[in-house]
Amino acid sequence: MADFFFLIFGINNTLFINDTEDYMKTSAVTGNMLIAQSGGPSMVINQSLVGAITEAKKHKNIKNIYGSLHGIKGILSENMIDLRKESTATLEAVANTPSSGLGSVRKKPSAEDCTKIFAVLKKYNVRFFFYIGGNDSAETVHIISEEAKKSSFDLRCFHIPKTIDNDLRENDHTPGFGSAAKFVAMAVMGDDLDNRALPGVKIDVIMGRNAGFLTAASALARQYPDAGPHLIYLPEKPFNINKFVGAVKKTVDRLGRCVVAVSEGIADETGVPIISKFNNETDSHGNVQLSGTGALGDLLAGEIKKKSDISRVRADTFGYLQRSFPAILSKEDAKEARLVGKEAVKAAMKITSGSIAIRRKPGKKYQVYFEPVPLKNVAKETKHMPDEFINEDWNNVTQAFIDYVRPIVGELPKVGVFKAVKVKKA
Amino acid sequence: MADFFFLIFGINNTLFINDTEDYMKTSAVTGNMLIAQSGGPSMVINQSLVGAITEAKKHKNIKNIYGSLHGIKGILSENMIDLRKESTATLEAVANTPSSGLGSVRKKPSAEDCTKIFAVLKKYNVRFFFYIGGNDSAETVHIISEEAKKSSFDLRCFHIPKTIDNDLRENDHTPGFGSAAKFVAMAVMGDDLDNRALPGVKIDVIMGRNAGFLTAASALARQYPDAGPHLIYLPEKPFNINKFVGAVKKTVDRLGRCVVAVSEGIADETGVPIISKFNNETDSHGNVQLSGTGALGDLLAGEIKKKSDISRVRADTFGYLQRSFPAILSKEDAKEARLVGKEAVKAAMKITSGSIAIRRKPGKKYQVYFEPVPLKNVAKETKHMPDEFINEDWNNVTQAFIDYVRPIVGELPKVGVFKAVKVKKA
Repeated sequence: MADFFFLIFGINNTLFINDTEDYMKTSAVTGNMLIAQSGGPSMVINQSLVGAITEAKKHKNIKNIYGSLHGIKGILSENMIDLRKESTATLEAVANTPSSGLGSVRKKPSAEDCTKIFAVLKKYNVRFFFYIGGNDSAETVHIISEEAKKSSFDLRCFHIPKTIDNDLRENDHTPGFGSAAKFVAMAVMGDDLDNRALPGVKIDVIMGRNAGFLTAASALARQYPDAGPHLIYLPEKPFNINKFVGAVKKTVDRLGRCVVAVSEGIADETGVPIISKFNNETDSHGNVQLSGTGALGDLLAGEIKKKSDISRVRADTFGYLQRSFPAILSKEDAKEARLVGKEAVKAAMKITSGSIAIRRKPGKKYQVYFEPVPLKNVAKETKHMPDEFINEDWNNVTQAFIDYVRPIVGELPKVGVFKAVKVKKA
Repeated sequence: MADFFFLIFGINNTLFINDTEDYMKTSAVTGNMLIAQSGGPSMVINQSLVGAITEAKKHKNIKNIYGSLHGIKGILSENMIDLRKESTATLEAVANTPSSGLGSVRKKPSAEDCTKIFAVLKKYNVRFFFYIGGNDSAETVHIISEEAKKSSFDLRCFHIPKTIDNDLRENDHTPGFGSAAKFVAMAVMGDDLDNRALPGVKIDVIMGRNAGFLTAASALARQYPDAGPHLIYLPEKPFNINKFVGAVKKTVDRLGRCVVAVSEGIADETGVPIISKFNNETDSHGNVQLSGTGALGDLLAGEIKKKSDISRVRADTFGYLQRSFPAILSKEDAKEARLVGKEAVKAAMKITSGSIAIRRKPGKKYQVYFEPVPLKNVAKETKHMPDEFINEDWNNVTQAFIDYVRPIVGELPKVGVFKAVKVKKA
């Protein structure tokens, strides 16, 4: 009943009024369903997939359930699998496995591609199309949805949110972020203890092209006085190399060591990503390829060595582990990822298109609800860390951010440190 | 009783005969104990520390229990803490926390240092000295032990083994390795699934300066047909860049993708580490600094791009996470690490010096026992992957290695993949 309430009455009325063409109440259609996954994998993207499949099985007007392999690439090449042939045990095993079980793709469809995709969907009598991914995927769904409308073909088009970057508009946070944030917090927790044992400067480069949420989540690693990360640099604020070296030196003077969490997407005053000076590979969405390289960490470490007398400076780039390391899951994240998949199928019974947004209820206790929103509200532009989450010096997060992120990440391992009563010198 | 049996009667008799000066049965002495940690941290080095402390508390002839901060550095500067002042709750919390709770150091003591260390130990009436670390630490203990003998000062000197590299002689495997190997296996498991979703070539650079055990453990990631890692390169066998590119190409031709696990210590035909061409920083033991840089991964990725038409090539260097990531523990490893700490204290009641080796009992069921061995048998030289663990092409491990390593690592998360029944083209 609660779900029903939100889907029918809980939708933001403003959106209804402004976007009637994009967002229409409608009666159910009968036909096949196709689901696919897109973009960078996450630890819980398969939860959303399996949530949608299990919900779909409850609806008699959904006939075959197809899974396209490698996103829209599998639609274009008619490379699909029959998801009704998978046992419940397999579905549950896949749900608990990181990365995209159907395969993924980084492909922005051309106008020609979209026409072809739509033709394939029609050919297979697909009436329910679900695409799990980030803002680029929402855009793809939006284009296909428009194509269907132009042809007056009743195709329910839904975007199911997924991104470890946590940068989708309309969402309090996104499925995949909580688990990736937990990995990052744990990684920095361990790395800080490593640095405490063998002091020096340690730079950890964390994913997040334009949004600093994941890097910022490293702050959850702090569990004892003077615990790291001691400095946090985000893509939302200009990065100045001299200020950075100065802040590191100051921390080393105070603590004898310094752990720094840096977003891979940090940019200079003119908006040029620091890393782009070393790596110019771009994907088909025009995004600079930032991961899988130690260049940024090495660059920053080199600058510290050059501009200070600190000898032990190390850098690690967490890389793909952040989005695919198994078993390190935020329980809330896994649960919510499952539910957005389910909610998308439920919504498709009542409205023609949309994305399922996660909203947080006001109040002290962490509670969320799900709400369909127009595709175009989630597509294209992304969101960033608001100013209230970033400190004045642009090198740390605020308590407001900690309060925001803690329930999303959930429980973390406890760090034990000695009371360390000094032995009097003999 | 079983422990007693091994310590008194289970000791390798040959060692007794050949090394009487280094390895003497003796009656108990009374005095203070000092324990310290050295070298790169691990996930379970604090288990050994707490094992030794809790065992020490049972022996009335052990008076004060001192912990030196940052290994021998803390002895030289008389910077020690009183470990009897730590509550049981704190001890247990520290035991379950990665990295070295007492701090660590990478310092090879000079002759002068050793004289000073010995003077400090005498000044504080330390009669039991325990140093947790790798082969370099065993060497340090050996030198101090010799110093004590020269002065006829009854000082029990014990090395407690720790190294994620798994390269200590006399040991079937070393504390710290199992948990690090579990992290590596899980990391490659997730990364392989990531690569399966977004195909291409992925190179994962794994720790291990001279021994390939940790890199080889990535083989445990394989749980489904054609799972990665598809190629494994170890420092034990010469690395040839053209053969490497050829093997990658062959794998991509067959599977459309390739996941490669590479040890940071791979070296060319003349024994020169590939990475040393890019990074010449060395530690005080003369070891080239191999970690904390993406240079090797980037170099190998670059070679593939240059010598093939494969466009999507990525590299990650797992870095310090391998030795300090919290909560990813091999249960066996944690248990054994605790026990070697305990066994060292027990041995110190009966013999003057040694290192505690982990031996595996013959037979199908995995069972270990602990045995004191002379310090010099563990110091200096390290061990390597035997030939029977490496395939003929030098790019994979054998079943013998899998059988060896699986029980050390223990349980791993289960990977779920779809049966994937193809939809017939319409």
